[in-house]
Amino acid sequence: MDALSPNSPSLPVDRGGIEILSFLQCQELLERGIVGRIGMVVAGEPVILPVNYRYVCGSIVFRTALGEKTDVAMMDKPVAFEIDEWDAVRETGWSILVKGTAHEVDSDDPAAAAAATLQPWARAVERDIWVRIVPNEITGRRVPS
Amino acid sequence: MDALSPNSPSLPVDRGGIEILSFLQCQELLERGIVGRIGMVVAGEPVILPVNYRYVCGSIVFRTALGEKTDVAMMDKPVAFEIDEWDAVRETGWSILVKGTAHEVDSDDPAAAAAATLQPWARAVERDIWVRIVPNEITGRRVPS
Repeated sequence: MDALSPNSPSLPVDRGGIEILSFLQCQELLERGIVGRIGMVVAGEPVILPVNYRYVCGSIVFRTALGEKTDVAMMDKPVAFEIDEWDAVRETGWSILVKGTAHEVDSDDPAAAAAATLQPWARAVERDIWVRIVPNEITGRRVPS
Repeated sequence: MDALSPNSPSLPVDRGGIEILSFLQCQELLERGIVGRIGMVVAGEPVILPVNYRYVCGSIVFRTALGEKTDVAMMDKPVAFEIDEWDAVRETGWSILVKGTAHEVDSDDPAAAAAATLQPWARAVERDIWVRIVPNEITGRRVPS
Protein backbone atom coordinates (compact mmCIF):
# COMPACT_ATOMS: atom_id res chain seq x y z
CA MET A 1 0.00 0.00 0.00
CA ASP A 2 1.57 3.22 -1.15
CA ALA A 3 0.30 5.20 1.78
CA LEU A 4 2.27 2.96 4.15
CA SER A 5 5.48 2.60 2.18
CA PRO A 6 8.73 3.72 3.83
CA ASN A 7 8.65 6.84 1.68
CA SER A 8 5.07 7.72 2.47
CA PRO A 9 4.41 11.17 3.85
CA SER A 10 4.39 11.43 7.60
CA LEU A 11 1.06 11.20 9.36
CA PRO A 12 -0.36 13.05 12.36
CA VAL A 13 0.82 11.56 15.65
CA ASP A 14 -0.95 10.87 18.93
CA ARG A 15 0.47 11.96 22.28
CA GLY A 16 2.46 8.73 22.46
CA GLY A 17 4.27 9.60 19.24
CA ILE A 18 2.40 6.93 17.27
CA GLU A 19 1.20 7.90 13.80
CA ILE A 20 -2.55 7.99 13.24
CA LEU A 21 -3.86 6.32 10.09
CA SER A 22 -6.74 7.90 8.23
CA PHE A 23 -10.10 6.18 8.01
CA LEU A 24 -9.46 5.60 4.29
CA GLN A 25 -6.13 3.92 5.02
CA CYS A 26 -7.79 1.74 7.66
CA GLN A 27 -10.44 0.67 5.18
CA GLU A 28 -7.88 -0.16 2.50
CA LEU A 29 -5.86 -2.26 4.92
CA LEU A 30 -9.00 -4.06 6.15
CA GLU A 31 -9.91 -4.83 2.53
CA ARG A 32 -6.46 -6.27 1.85
CA GLY A 33 -6.36 -8.32 5.05
CA ILE A 34 -6.81 -12.08 5.23
CA VAL A 35 -6.55 -13.04 8.90
CA GLY A 36 -7.64 -10.91 11.85
CA ARG A 37 -8.29 -11.47 15.51
CA ILE A 38 -11.53 -11.26 17.42
CA GLY A 39 -11.42 -9.95 20.97
CA MET A 40 -14.35 -10.83 23.19
CA VAL A 41 -15.21 -11.40 26.80
CA VAL A 42 -15.91 -15.02 27.78
CA ALA A 43 -16.90 -15.72 31.39
CA GLY A 44 -15.62 -12.32 32.41
CA GLU A 45 -12.19 -12.75 30.81
CA PRO A 46 -10.81 -11.30 27.58
CA VAL A 47 -10.12 -13.86 24.85
CA ILE A 48 -8.42 -13.36 21.45
CA LEU A 49 -8.98 -15.76 18.57
CA PRO A 50 -7.72 -15.52 14.97
CA VAL A 51 -10.09 -15.88 12.05
CA ASN A 52 -9.88 -15.58 8.27
CA TYR A 53 -12.28 -12.88 7.19
CA ARG A 54 -13.52 -10.46 4.54
CA TYR A 55 -14.19 -6.75 4.89
CA VAL A 56 -17.28 -6.03 2.81
CA CYS A 57 -20.15 -3.54 3.01
CA GLY A 58 -18.22 -1.77 5.76
CA SER A 59 -18.38 -4.87 7.97
CA ILE A 60 -16.11 -7.72 9.04
CA VAL A 61 -17.54 -11.07 7.92
CA PHE A 62 -16.36 -14.55 8.89
CA ARG A 63 -17.75 -18.06 9.28
CA THR A 64 -17.84 -20.23 12.32
CA ALA A 65 -19.40 -23.39 13.69
CA LEU A 66 -22.51 -23.55 15.81
CA GLY A 67 -22.28 -23.89 19.52
CA GLU A 68 -18.72 -23.12 20.42
CA LYS A 69 -18.79 -21.21 23.65
CA THR A 70 -16.80 -18.36 22.19
CA ASP A 71 -19.34 -17.99 19.40
CA VAL A 72 -22.21 -17.80 21.82
CA ALA A 73 -20.28 -15.34 23.97
CA MET A 74 -19.66 -12.91 21.14
CA MET A 75 -23.12 -12.66 19.56
CA ASP A 76 -24.89 -9.30 19.91
CA LYS A 77 -22.16 -8.10 22.24
CA PRO A 78 -19.30 -5.63 21.92
CA VAL A 79 -16.28 -7.23 20.28
CA ALA A 80 -12.92 -6.04 19.03
CA PHE A 81 -11.30 -6.99 15.74
CA GLU A 82 -7.65 -6.37 15.00
CA ILE A 83 -5.24 -6.74 12.08
CA ASP A 84 -1.58 -5.77 12.02
CA GLU A 85 1.64 -6.11 10.08
CA TRP A 86 5.14 -5.52 11.37
CA ASP A 87 8.80 -5.59 10.48
CA ALA A 88 11.06 -6.78 13.29
CA VAL A 89 14.24 -5.57 11.56
CA ARG A 90 13.03 -2.01 11.08
CA GLU A 91 11.05 -2.15 14.35
CA THR A 92 8.01 -0.72 12.70
CA GLY A 93 4.45 -1.83 12.09
CA TRP A 94 0.85 -0.81 11.89
CA SER A 95 -2.41 -2.07 13.39
CA ILE A 96 -6.09 -1.48 12.85
CA LEU A 97 -8.59 -1.80 15.69
CA VAL A 98 -12.28 -2.22 14.96
CA LYS A 99 -14.75 -1.90 17.80
CA GLY A 100 -18.22 -3.11 17.06
CA THR A 101 -20.95 -5.61 17.71
CA ALA A 102 -21.06 -9.17 16.38
CA HIS A 103 -24.26 -10.55 14.88
CA GLU A 104 -25.18 -13.89 13.43
CA VAL A 105 -26.61 -13.23 9.97
CA ASP A 106 -28.23 -15.32 7.26
CA SER A 107 -26.18 -16.22 4.23
CA ASP A 108 -28.35 -13.82 2.22
CA ASP A 109 -27.38 -10.90 4.42
CA PRO A 110 -25.82 -8.35 2.02
CA ALA A 111 -22.38 -8.56 3.65
CA ALA A 112 -22.46 -12.37 3.88
CA ALA A 113 -23.59 -12.56 0.26
CA ALA A 114 -20.77 -10.24 -0.79
CA ALA A 115 -18.34 -12.59 0.98
CA ALA A 116 -20.00 -15.74 -0.37
CA THR A 117 -16.73 -17.22 -1.62
CA LEU A 118 -15.17 -16.99 1.86
CA GLN A 119 -14.12 -20.46 3.04
CA PRO A 120 -13.09 -21.16 6.61
CA TRP A 121 -9.58 -22.63 6.74
CA ALA A 122 -10.62 -25.16 9.37
CA ARG A 123 -13.03 -27.45 7.55
CA ALA A 124 -13.10 -30.56 9.71
CA VAL A 125 -16.53 -29.53 10.92
CA GLU A 126 -19.17 -27.53 9.07
CA ARG A 127 -18.76 -23.80 9.74
CA ASP A 128 -22.01 -22.53 8.32
CA ILE A 129 -22.71 -19.73 10.78
CA TRP A 130 -22.05 -16.33 9.25
CA VAL A 131 -20.97 -13.62 11.67
CA ARG A 132 -20.97 -9.94 10.79
CA ILE A 133 -19.19 -7.41 12.96
CA VAL A 134 -20.79 -4.01 12.44
CA PRO A 135 -18.15 -1.43 13.39
CA ASN A 136 -18.91 1.60 15.47
CA GLU A 137 -15.25 2.70 15.51
CA ILE A 138 -12.31 1.98 13.22
CA THR A 139 -8.88 3.34 14.15
CA GLY A 140 -5.37 2.66 12.98
CA ARG A 141 -1.88 3.39 14.21
CA ARG A 142 1.61 3.05 12.79
CA VAL A 143 4.90 2.97 14.65
CA PRO A 144 7.24 4.98 12.42
CA SER A 145 10.65 3.42 11.76
CA MET B 1 10.14 -24.90 14.64
CA ASP B 2 10.39 -28.57 13.74
CA ALA B 3 7.29 -29.52 15.65
CA LEU B 4 5.23 -27.26 13.39
CA SER B 5 6.81 -28.07 10.04
CA PRO B 6 4.59 -29.46 7.29
CA ASN B 7 6.07 -32.89 7.94
CA SER B 8 5.53 -32.80 11.68
CA PRO B 9 3.53 -35.61 13.22
CA SER B 10 -0.15 -34.97 13.57
CA LEU B 11 -1.42 -33.64 16.87
CA PRO B 12 -4.54 -34.41 18.88
CA VAL B 13 -7.55 -32.48 17.64
CA ASP B 14 -10.38 -30.69 19.42
CA ARG B 15 -14.03 -31.26 18.52
CA GLY B 16 -13.79 -28.55 15.88
CA GLY B 17 -11.05 -30.49 14.10
CA ILE B 18 -8.35 -28.03 15.13
CA GLU B 19 -5.04 -29.52 16.30
CA ILE B 20 -4.06 -28.94 19.91
CA LEU B 21 -0.49 -27.80 20.56
CA SER B 22 1.34 -29.15 23.59
CA PHE B 23 2.33 -26.85 26.44
CA LEU B 24 5.98 -27.30 25.41
CA GLN B 25 5.20 -26.24 21.84
CA CYS B 26 3.31 -23.20 23.13
CA GLN B 27 6.27 -22.20 25.28
CA GLU B 28 8.75 -22.58 22.42
CA LEU B 29 6.57 -20.44 20.14
CA LEU B 30 6.14 -17.79 22.84
CA GLU B 31 9.94 -17.71 23.30
CA ARG B 32 10.48 -17.23 19.56
CA GLY B 33 7.81 -14.56 19.23
CA ILE B 34 8.47 -10.85 18.79
CA VAL B 35 5.08 -9.15 18.58
CA GLY B 36 1.92 -10.25 20.36
CA ARG B 37 -1.45 -8.74 21.11
CA ILE B 38 -2.94 -7.79 24.44
CA GLY B 39 -6.67 -8.22 24.89
CA MET B 40 -8.29 -6.26 27.68
CA VAL B 41 -11.57 -4.69 28.64
CA VAL B 42 -11.67 -0.88 28.55
CA ALA B 43 -14.89 0.83 29.60
CA GLY B 44 -16.74 -2.43 29.22
CA GLU B 45 -15.54 -3.12 25.67
CA PRO B 46 -12.89 -5.53 24.44
CA VAL B 47 -9.77 -3.90 22.99
CA ILE B 48 -6.79 -5.52 21.22
CA LEU B 49 -3.41 -3.78 21.00
CA PRO B 50 -0.13 -5.13 19.57
CA VAL B 51 3.07 -4.96 21.58
CA ASN B 52 6.64 -6.16 21.18
CA TYR B 53 7.41 -8.49 24.06
CA ARG B 54 9.62 -11.13 25.64
CA TYR B 55 8.57 -14.43 27.17
CA VAL B 56 10.82 -14.95 30.20
CA CYS B 57 10.45 -16.68 33.57
CA GLY B 58 7.18 -18.11 32.32
CA SER B 59 5.70 -14.61 31.90
CA ILE B 60 4.99 -12.15 29.10
CA VAL B 61 6.95 -8.92 29.63
CA PHE B 62 6.60 -5.65 27.75
CA ARG B 63 7.14 -1.93 28.29
CA THR B 64 4.64 0.87 28.10
CA ALA B 65 4.17 4.52 28.99
CA LEU B 66 2.54 5.82 32.10
CA GLY B 67 -1.02 6.95 32.06
CA GLU B 68 -2.47 5.70 28.85
CA LYS B 69 -6.00 4.65 29.60
CA THR B 70 -5.43 1.17 28.24
CA ASP B 71 -2.49 0.70 30.58
CA VAL B 72 -4.52 1.70 33.58
CA ALA B 73 -7.37 -0.54 32.43
CA MET B 74 -5.22 -3.65 32.21
CA MET B 75 -3.33 -3.51 35.50
CA ASP B 76 -4.15 -6.25 38.02
CA LYS B 77 -7.00 -7.43 35.83
CA PRO B 78 -7.56 -10.45 33.58
CA VAL B 79 -5.98 -9.97 30.18
CA ALA B 80 -5.44 -12.10 27.11
CA PHE B 81 -2.24 -12.30 25.10
CA GLU B 82 -2.09 -13.83 21.64
CA ILE B 83 0.51 -14.66 19.01
CA ASP B 84 -0.08 -16.35 15.69
CA GLU B 85 1.48 -17.17 12.35
CA TRP B 86 -0.33 -18.17 9.17
CA ASP B 87 0.12 -19.07 5.55
CA ALA B 88 -2.64 -17.77 3.29
CA VAL B 89 -1.61 -19.99 0.38
CA ARG B 90 -1.73 -23.24 2.33
CA GLU B 91 -4.64 -21.91 4.44
CA THR B 92 -2.96 -23.03 7.61
CA GLY B 93 -1.73 -21.36 10.75
CA TRP B 94 -1.29 -21.61 14.48
CA SER B 95 -2.09 -19.40 17.44
CA ILE B 96 -1.24 -19.29 21.11
CA LEU B 97 -3.63 -17.81 23.66
CA VAL B 98 -2.37 -16.80 27.10
CA LYS B 99 -4.90 -15.92 29.76
CA GLY B 100 -3.50 -14.22 32.79
CA THR B 101 -3.27 -11.12 34.91
CA ALA B 102 -1.23 -8.02 34.08
CA HIS B 103 0.90 -6.38 36.76
CA GLU B 104 3.13 -3.34 36.78
CA VAL B 105 6.52 -4.48 38.06
CA ASP B 106 9.77 -2.77 38.98
CA SER B 107 12.67 -3.06 36.55
CA ASP B 108 14.38 -5.33 39.09
CA ASP B 109 11.52 -7.80 38.97
CA PRO B 110 13.11 -11.12 37.88
CA ALA B 111 11.15 -11.27 34.62
CA ALA B 112 11.73 -7.59 33.83
CA ALA B 113 15.43 -8.01 34.63
CA ALA B 114 15.61 -11.05 32.35
CA ALA B 115 14.09 -8.92 29.58
CA ALA B 116 16.27 -5.88 30.35
CA THR B 117 17.40 -5.46 26.73
CA LEU B 118 13.80 -5.20 25.52
CA GLN B 119 13.25 -1.85 23.80
CA PRO B 120 9.81 -0.57 22.87
CA TRP B 121 9.58 0.11 19.13
CA ALA B 122 7.67 3.34 19.74
CA ARG B 123 10.20 5.60 21.43
CA ALA B 124 8.77 9.07 20.90
CA VAL B 125 7.79 9.09 24.57
CA GLU B 126 9.49 7.33 27.47
CA ARG B 127 8.03 3.86 27.97
CA ASP B 128 9.52 3.01 31.31
CA ILE B 129 6.64 1.06 32.83
CA TRP B 130 7.33 -2.66 32.89
CA VAL B 131 4.27 -4.89 32.63
CA ARG B 132 4.35 -8.59 33.42
CA ILE B 133 1.49 -10.89 32.44
CA VAL B 134 1.48 -13.89 34.75
CA PRO B 135 -0.30 -16.68 32.86
CA ASN B 136 -2.87 -18.91 34.44
CA GLU B 137 -3.59 -20.72 31.17
CA ILE B 138 -1.58 -21.19 27.98
CA THR B 139 -3.17 -22.99 25.05
CA GLY B 140 -2.31 -23.35 21.38
CA ARG B 141 -4.10 -24.50 18.26
CA ARG B 142 -3.08 -25.24 14.69
CA VAL B 143 -5.27 -25.41 11.61
CA PRO B 144 -3.80 -28.33 9.64
CA SER B 145 -3.24 -27.72 5.95
